[in-house]
Amino acid sequence: MSNSDEDILYHLGITSKTYDFKKVLGDIKFVCTGGSVKRIENFAKCLLERLPINSPFGVQPKNLCQSDRFVMYKVGPVLCVNHGIGFGSLSIMLNEVFKLLRYAGCTDVTFFRVGTSGGIGMRFKRKSSSAGSPGGTLVITKTAVDGLLQESYEAVLKQYYYVVLVLGKSIRYPTVLNEAVSEELKKIAEELGFNVVTGKTLSANDFYEGEARLDGALCSYTEEEKMQFIQKAYALGVRNMEMEATCFAAMCLRAHFKAAVICVALLDRLKEDQLTTPPEELRQWEARPMEVVLQYICRHIDD
Amino acid sequence: MSNSDEDILYHLGITSKTYDFKKVLGDIKFVCTGGSVKRIENFAKCLLERLPINSPFGVQPKNLCQSDRFVMYKVGPVLCVNHGIGFGSLSIMLNEVFKLLRYAGCTDVTFFRVGTSGGIGMRFKRKSSSAGSPGGTLVITKTAVDGLLQESYEAVLKQYYYVVLVLGKSIRYPTVLNEAVSEELKKIAEELGFNVVTGKTLSANDFYEGEARLDGALCSYTEEEKMQFIQKAYALGVRNMEMEATCFAAMCLRAHFKAAVICVALLDRLKEDQLTTPPEELRQWEARPMEVVLQYICRHIDD
Repeated sequence: MSNSDEDILYHLGITSKTYDFKKVLGDIKFVCTGGSVKRIENFAKCLLERLPINSPFGVQPKNLCQSDRFVMYKVGPVLCVNHGIGFGSLSIMLNEVFKLLRYAGCTDVTFFRVGTSGGIGMRFKRKSSSAGSPGGTLVITKTAVDGLLQESYEAVLKQYYYVVLVLGKSIRYPTVLNEAVSEELKKIAEELGFNVVTGKTLSANDFYEGEARLDGALCSYTEEEKMQFIQKAYALGVRNMEMEATCFAAMCLRAHFKAAVICVALLDRLKEDQLTTPPEELRQWEARPMEVVLQYICRHIDD
Repeated sequence: MSNSDEDILYHLGITSKTYDFKKVLGDIKFVCTGGSVKRIENFAKCLLERLPINSPFGVQPKNLCQSDRFVMYKVGPVLCVNHGIGFGSLSIMLNEVFKLLRYAGCTDVTFFRVGTSGGIGMRFKRKSSSAGSPGGTLVITKTAVDGLLQESYEAVLKQYYYVVLVLGKSIRYPTVLNEAVSEELKKIAEELGFNVVTGKTLSANDFYEGEARLDGALCSYTEEEKMQFIQKAYALGVRNMEMEATCFAAMCLRAHFKAAVICVALLDRLKEDQLTTPPEELRQWEARPMEVVLQYICRHIDD
C-alpha cells in the first residue's frame, strides 16, 4: 500500500475508503472468476439461492464495483468477479483483488477460474448421461502452457512458465495449480455425471491465430499447418485452449493462493473452429464448471 | 469466411445473418475504439448530437452487439466499439470488426484508438488554457513499443514490433501508424487549445509491474529501479504507457487500414503511480481525445 491513507483500486472503481474491507469482506474464503460479466452475475445469483447461508427473501447480489471495467459480487464467503478477456485484463483484476483480500485480512483463500474453452480431442465416458456430445466436456487444468508449447518447457525443473515484460526484461513465473483442489473438482464432476478430463491448457494471447483458427480476419498459415499444430498440442497432453490459465496460475502462485482452473470445452478444435451449438445447450454447458465449483464450496464452507 | 453461409462473430454476439452488413454498415468510414464501455457509449451519443448527419429527435445510439463482451454503436459513417483491456481483448474485437467491414464492403476506413494512459515527463505549452496541469495532456503515438523497449528495435529496418505466438512460433509485425492522420490530429488538438505531444507509446501486457508501478499487489523491483526504467523510457522518446497501441497498430497495418492512437495522459509517471484527480476533471480529460477525433471526422465526413 502507498503511504497515503487511501489506496485506489482503480479498475474496480473502489478505494480503501469505499468499504470497510475488513468488516464487509473479511470472511471471504473463495474467489470465483470467469471472463464474461453475465456468467459471473448468474453464478452469484445461483450461489445466493443455493449456498447454505442466511439471506432474506427478496434480495439479489449487488455489483460492488463502481467502474465499468469489471463486476464483483459477494455471496457468503465467495467473491465472484469477472476478468474480461486475456492476460492484460485478468492481471489487472487479480492485482486489485489480491490487494482487497490483503486489506480485508482474508487468509486461506482458494481461487477458481471457471471458463469456456476450445477442447482438443477429448475422450468421452461411454456411460455418461451426455456421452456422445462433442462439446460440454469439462477440462481441469493440470498445468498451463503458452503458445510456444514445448519450447516453454524447462526440462530440469519440469516446469512451464508465464512470461511478463517488466522493466525492459522478460521475467517468467511457473504456472503451477493446486493438485488437491483440482483432484477434488474432478471427483465432483464425475459424481455429477459430467464428462471430465485433466490435461494441459494452452493459454494463447489471441483467440484467432493464437488458437490456430482459420476463421479470423487475418490468417498466416494453411489448414494443414493448423491441424499439425493442434495434433502436436494434443500429443503433448494439451486438452483445451483459452486465454488466461497461464497468467491466472502464475499470479495466484506468486500471491500464495491455492488456485484451480475448470473450463468447459465448447467444441473440439480437431474438428471445427466455430461454435454452432444452439444457445440453450451452450448455456447448459457453460453452467457445468460453475456447478462443480458450487459443490466444492458447499463441501468446504465450514472448513 | 468459412464455407458455410453463416459466419459467427462470436464475441460481438452477431452473425452474418443478424444484420445485412452491406446494407446497414456499408457506409462506415471511421472506426473509433477505446477500452471502456461507458466512454464509447458516451462518444456515440456525442457523435449523434454533433455530427452533420440526419437523425430524428428522440433517438439514441443502440448497442449492436448481442453479447456481454463488447458494445458497438453506429453513428453515420462512424462505428464506435470498445475493446476492453489489453492485447487479447483488443485482438478479438479487431478480428471481428475487420470481418464485419469486409462483409459490409467498406473501403478506405480509418481506425482511431482514443484512450487513457500514464504520461511520462510531458512538456506543457505555457499559454495553453490548461497550462500547469500535470495531467490531461494528449499524446499522439508516433510508434508503439513493447515492454522490452530498445531490445525490440530493429536497427536495420528502423522498426518496432508487436509479437504474437502463432502455431508454436513467435511472429512479429511492425507497429506503424499513419503519419498524415496523426499529424492532422495534432494540429486539431493544438487548435482546440489542448496540450499535445507526439511520441513513442509503451504498450505493456500488465498495468502494474508491466507499467513499472509500485502499488500493485505483486512487485519485483525497487523504487529506484522503477525510476531508472521510466527515465530510460523517456530518454528513448516514450511519452506514455498503456496496454494496446502495439497490437492496434500492427493489426490495422496487416489489414491495410489507416490507424492512429490518441490518448490522454492522466498522470505523470515520473511523479506518481496512482490517479488522484477528481472524477469531474478526469471526465473532462477523458473527453479530449474524443473531441479531437470528432473534429477530424467532421472535416473528412464528405471525403
